[in-house]
Amino acid sequence: MADSRFFRVAGPFTLGALAQAAGATLAPDGDPSLVFSDVAPLHHAGPADVSFLDNRKYVSDFKVSRAGACVVHPDLAGQAPPGMALLISSNPYRSYALVATLFYPNAVPAGVISPGAHIDPNAVIGAGTDVAAGAVIGPEVRIGVGCRIGANAVIERGVEIGDHTIVGSNASLAYCLIGNHVYIYPGVRIGQDGFGFAIDPGGYVRVPQIGRVIVEDHVEIGANSTVDRGSGGDTVIGRGSMIDNLVQIGHNVQVGAGCIIIAQAGVAGSSKLGHHVVVAAQVGVAGHLTVGDGARIAAQSGVMRNVPAGAEVCGAPAVPIKQFFRQVATLVRLASQGEHGTRGGIAQDQ
Amino acid sequence: MADSRFFRVAGPFTLGALAQAAGATLAPDGDPSLVFSDVAPLHHAGPADVSFLDNRKYVSDFKVSRAGACVVHPDLAGQAPPGMALLISSNPYRSYALVATLFYPNAVPAGVISPGAHIDPNAVIGAGTDVAAGAVIGPEVRIGVGCRIGANAVIERGVEIGDHTIVGSNASLAYCLIGNHVYIYPGVRIGQDGFGFAIDPGGYVRVPQIGRVIVEDHVEIGANSTVDRGSGGDTVIGRGSMIDNLVQIGHNVQVGAGCIIIAQAGVAGSSKLGHHVVVAAQVGVAGHLTVGDGARIAAQSGVMRNVPAGAEVCGAPAVPIKQFFRQVATLVRLASQGEHGTRGGIAQDQ
Amino acid sequence: MADSRFFRVAGPFTLGALAQAAGATLAPDGDPSLVFSDVAPLHHAGPADVSFLDNRKYVSDFKVSRAGACVVHPDLAGQAPPGMALLISSNPYRSYALVATLFYPNAVPAGVISPGAHIDPNAVIGAGTDVAAGAVIGPEVRIGVGCRIGANAVIERGVEIGDHTIVGSNASLAYCLIGNHVYIYPGVRIGQDGFGFAIDPGGYVRVPQIGRVIVEDHVEIGANSTVDRGSGGDTVIGRGSMIDNLVQIGHNVQVGAGCIIIAQAGVAGSSKLGHHVVVAAQVGVAGHLTVGDGARIAAQSGVMRNVPAGAEVCGAPAVPIKQFFRQVATLVRLASQGEHGTRGGIAQDQ
Repeated sequence: MADSRFFRVAGPFTLGALAQAAGATLAPDGDPSLVFSDVAPLHHAGPADVSFLDNRKYVSDFKVSRAGACVVHPDLAGQAPPGMALLISSNPYRSYALVATLFYPNAVPAGVISPGAHIDPNAVIGAGTDVAAGAVIGPEVRIGVGCRIGANAVIERGVEIGDHTIVGSNASLAYCLIGNHVYIYPGVRIGQDGFGFAIDPGGYVRVPQIGRVIVEDHVEIGANSTVDRGSGGDTVIGRGSMIDNLVQIGHNVQVGAGCIIIAQAGVAGSSKLGHHVVVAAQVGVAGHLTVGDGARIAAQSGVMRNVPAGAEVCGAPAVPIKQFFRQVATLVRLASQGEHGTRGGIAQDQ
Repeated sequence: MADSRFFRVAGPFTLGALAQAAGATLAPDGDPSLVFSDVAPLHHAGPADVSFLDNRKYVSDFKVSRAGACVVHPDLAGQAPPGMALLISSNPYRSYALVATLFYPNAVPAGVISPGAHIDPNAVIGAGTDVAAGAVIGPEVRIGVGCRIGANAVIERGVEIGDHTIVGSNASLAYCLIGNHVYIYPGVRIGQDGFGFAIDPGGYVRVPQIGRVIVEDHVEIGANSTVDRGSGGDTVIGRGSMIDNLVQIGHNVQVGAGCIIIAQAGVAGSSKLGHHVVVAAQVGVAGHLTVGDGARIAAQSGVMRNVPAGAEVCGAPAVPIKQFFRQVATLVRLASQGEHGTRGGIAQDQ
Repeated sequence: MADSRFFRVAGPFTLGALAQAAGATLAPDGDPSLVFSDVAPLHHAGPADVSFLDNRKYVSDFKVSRAGACVVHPDLAGQAPPGMALLISSNPYRSYALVATLFYPNAVPAGVISPGAHIDPNAVIGAGTDVAAGAVIGPEVRIGVGCRIGANAVIERGVEIGDHTIVGSNASLAYCLIGNHVYIYPGVRIGQDGFGFAIDPGGYVRVPQIGRVIVEDHVEIGANSTVDRGSGGDTVIGRGSMIDNLVQIGHNVQVGAGCIIIAQAGVAGSSKLGHHVVVAAQVGVAGHLTVGDGARIAAQSGVMRNVPAGAEVCGAPAVPIKQFFRQVATLVRLASQGEHGTRGGIAQDQ
């Protein structure tokens, strides 16, 4: 049971309703009228709880679980303990996400504008949008319906935000157009100058950055991440992309749709990620590169060259992942040989 | 002398009082009634100042220092210049810290609630707690005694904070329970969603993150660091752990007691650090790993496997540190041989 | 044309005025009275626009561009299409920056103090300085003329800020002296405690950090970067240095004049960078090191030793860049040989 200081559980819900929400089917003997009141992990769950099995290594927990219902892949459904109601799905984790969202839905804004907010008279705020205390909303700002603007967030002149979008506390938005169903987490900085200046012995000369940031629908940008605006064109975060915390997106970067960029990664100016690219934690992508659709960049890699679509790369400089592991194995082998002098041997002293 | 615009020096204090506070002893001829009024480094200090010697390489400074008193290890006390009062300690840096804290104590909050703060009528704030202008404190928040809540900090619904805890300016706290004597620096984000979602061709489906963040007593979390809440269980930062700036702690991470995590490191979801683990700067620890008590992870390492208690690892992928340096030396050697073709030779052209 | 929701274009300007501002010369047949109204890239520009050519790889765009005027290096001026007015400069990018700044000048503050700001009665704010809503300005703060203090920025007791300096929204400044023409971006944290504590089995003992941060004139510090104050002396950022986003500067660090520190890099405590040092993205510089004037540290390097003036280093641990690339080539070669057993061969299977 989630901490009721923070979470209000909705429901209860019938098995039938859960199956429908989850895109799951019931077992032939499943009773759609059974009622459930919460989610819980397999080893904690009781008869009123719904669990999920997403990984074969937890099958032993599954077999002895007291969960009243469980989301499970058809291949593993046969291992269920007697009496457990099954929600059968070919993507159990997704179905579980949908079930959990029924019990713990996103908060619906109430359309409350705090008297402690500072809202320019020329700003336009849609119906049902919450604006928390200390939020500062500048001239000509347009915010859609059903949004939540967090405490002490700053939305600068001219920014436009779509519908059902959340801006977290203490975030700063400028020079940007934000879509619908976007979630911008606390402390995010969007739209500041990119790192662009001319080098001159007399001192650096800033180049005016006259582009914007475009954040498309269903994007998430994690806490304290930074997205610089374009120098002439725009920096674009494509539809449905998920950006984690402490990520840096440089000016003029184009991120395709459905990308995943994990914590503390950075993409330097003018690089272009295709669709469904995965950039793992602490990766650095150099500037002016192209990373093709579906490419996957392993954690801590340093990408210095274009990455073809579908490629999987690793290392710094990043190379195809099989090559990276060959290099690692080679170095391990040679280092142990080196220690044993000319006698060779392949002692693997890990 | 510290800049009086920013620092108010307390005291003066007698040598005897300093020795007591510092857990140090006096030399046999030490006069506990001598009075001192400030701390200063060896090369700057004068007769009214207290210095410390913590590193043999500064012994030459020590021998000619004009400091009226100095914290020193028994092994080096004999090298003191004539007339210098000695505070003898087996841990000189710790003793110096305690002496300096006498002269520059933490500010004591005055129990002032700024009229510019936004405090929900249902929040409860303990005696002697300061709340600065622009701070936003939500419903059902509980804050203990003697705390300081910084300007424009945001404390969301239901958060509980213990006694004598400091929350820095512009920080954001949600879904968390914070202990006593905790120091949360400016710009920290605690309690936002972890990076959890199901992957589906139709778009990512967020998994509700229904856990919390638990921050135990005497923890420090550095500026602009981010700590995500748990997905079902909690993310926990153990007692007395010190986290530096721009660190990322993923959902469900368990950090033991007395750990040190240095700037820009990241610990991915569901990993578990034991007690007294040292994670150096810019390290990445992958998810679902265990790092044993007392392990030390060198800067910029990429930890991809469990680390045994007491181990010292380095590199990406991280390996035992001796092995890492063998690998480095091997590569240096082979690279110079490669340049000299088949003639071998071991020219070390650094 | 930049988005007029966000940008107001100044001008128009004559070719003569542009040449003068840009430090460029006209072609012999150039007509200084020609009028231009905007900047645009070569492939978009029209007869009223000014472009620039900064890179030979865009010469083909240049030859067919419809830009009315273009900033160009003397060596490439001969390739201009007929009818294009030329602004000839030996540093075209710098000249373009100056031209673009004419059309898109920095906003001039209007001297407006928002009633929503919280300003201590003892603070002194110079003429023509803007202070936005929610900004919190503490006792004894001194701010110069023509500054802009962003929404919800926090300036703590005693901080001094020079003239024509910008502090971005949601930034936090404490224990610091800031010069003239400084740009501190949103979310920056300046002046918090450095990561200094004595290690003791009973728990860490914080060492009071009684130094400051000095930020010299014409410095920029990027979004969400963190600069810790000194432990006794000061942390110093030298004149004209440019620091990007999410950078960490540890306590007692000295950064010389005209340095460039790119996103997500970190410089550990007590290290010293000379003048005009370039620290690329995601670099880590260990503590107590010296990096000489004009040194260049490649992206993701881990600097563990002093770097001589003018050196170019790469890798972790960082070595001279030529050596790094030899090491990479060696490892690639050996890894492919390893795969082919004793038959050697130099198949480069990238």
